[in-house]
Amino acid sequence: MEKEWDIIEVLRHSRHDWLNKIQLIKGNLDLNRIERVKEIIEQIVIETQQETKLSNLKLPQFASLVLRANWDQHQFQLEYEVLDEGESLSINESQLTYWTESFFACLNDSVEPFQDNHLSISIEKLSNGARFFFDFRGIIKKIKLIEQFLAGSNQTEMELIIRQFSENELALEVFMPMA
Amino acid sequence: MEKEWDIIEVLRHSRHDWLNKIQLIKGNLDLNRIERVKEIIEQIVIETQQETKLSNLKLPQFASLVLRANWDQHQFQLEYEVLDEGESLSINESQLTYWTESFFACLNDSVEPFQDNHLSISIEKLSNGARFFFDFRGIIKKIKLIEQFLAGSNQTEMELIIRQFSENELALEVFMPMA
Repeated sequence: MEKEWDIIEVLRHSRHDWLNKIQLIKGNLDLNRIERVKEIIEQIVIETQQETKLSNLKLPQFASLVLRANWDQHQFQLEYEVLDEGESLSINESQLTYWTESFFACLNDSVEPFQDNHLSISIEKLSNGARFFFDFRGIIKKIKLIEQFLAGSNQTEMELIIRQFSENELALEVFMPMA
Repeated sequence: MEKEWDIIEVLRHSRHDWLNKIQLIKGNLDLNRIERVKEIIEQIVIETQQETKLSNLKLPQFASLVLRANWDQHQFQLEYEVLDEGESLSINESQLTYWTESFFACLNDSVEPFQDNHLSISIEKLSNGARFFFDFRGIIKKIKLIEQFLAGSNQTEMELIIRQFSENELALEVFMPMA
């Protein structure tokens, strides 16, 4: 029964996302901005290619989390990019997904709501594992909360490097070794 | 785990469907057929409204079956229309879904493959139940198979009326009483 509802719920969110894109096309078309419409379509195609790449990583839990992130009422907008395709990743996916979910929750509690908060994730496959760059830009209100979270993140097999940490930016590099 | 994969699979199908629409818009835009693009967008909006109506019927099993019908490799194309919205339907959904799924399978085995085969479903709510019109247009090869299926459909609480039955059309009216 739950599975049945899922299809409906997933399509409801997907439909909402796509209708926003269609409205953007329609709005610019009505203003006769044909070149802008073409740019929007190009952007849409690039985004869907990224979605395909993410889905093909064979990290279903992690991919699902990322794909539905903007459906949850987060205080930040998520973007992502898969830098490299090819072989599927053999890493500790549960740990990565659990950490990422916790990071989203922590970020959600730490940032100034209703601001221009953005998190971008870049995913890069390496010969000995995978590297994930998490780059947040926006307004962080509760620095302490994030500090505590990051301090507690060291007890896993992932390697975490803080590249940048201020009130307006948090850049993390997470390396997951080959499992 | 299954649920996680579901999101990815559903989005894969949905993305494919939407990219087809975007390609249609792009193709016509490249040919500078602006009015045609506007018509396509209007059609897309109407289709998504129907999808919303179907999802709101509170018949999750039946709606899921219909929503994913064109993802399966059927020998016919499915369209649907919800004639009336409003109160949710209180009918024997399992029976309706089981019958519809069996009907799809029977039709799939009975029609001439790779032809212009179309099935349209109209859903109409009534004060004492709901009426479903199934209208197939195309080429039916195995009339006997459908006759057998229809003969076996009488042992349920649904009322089935054959409105039209020839090699090129099969029109059925199914009434499901209020549960």
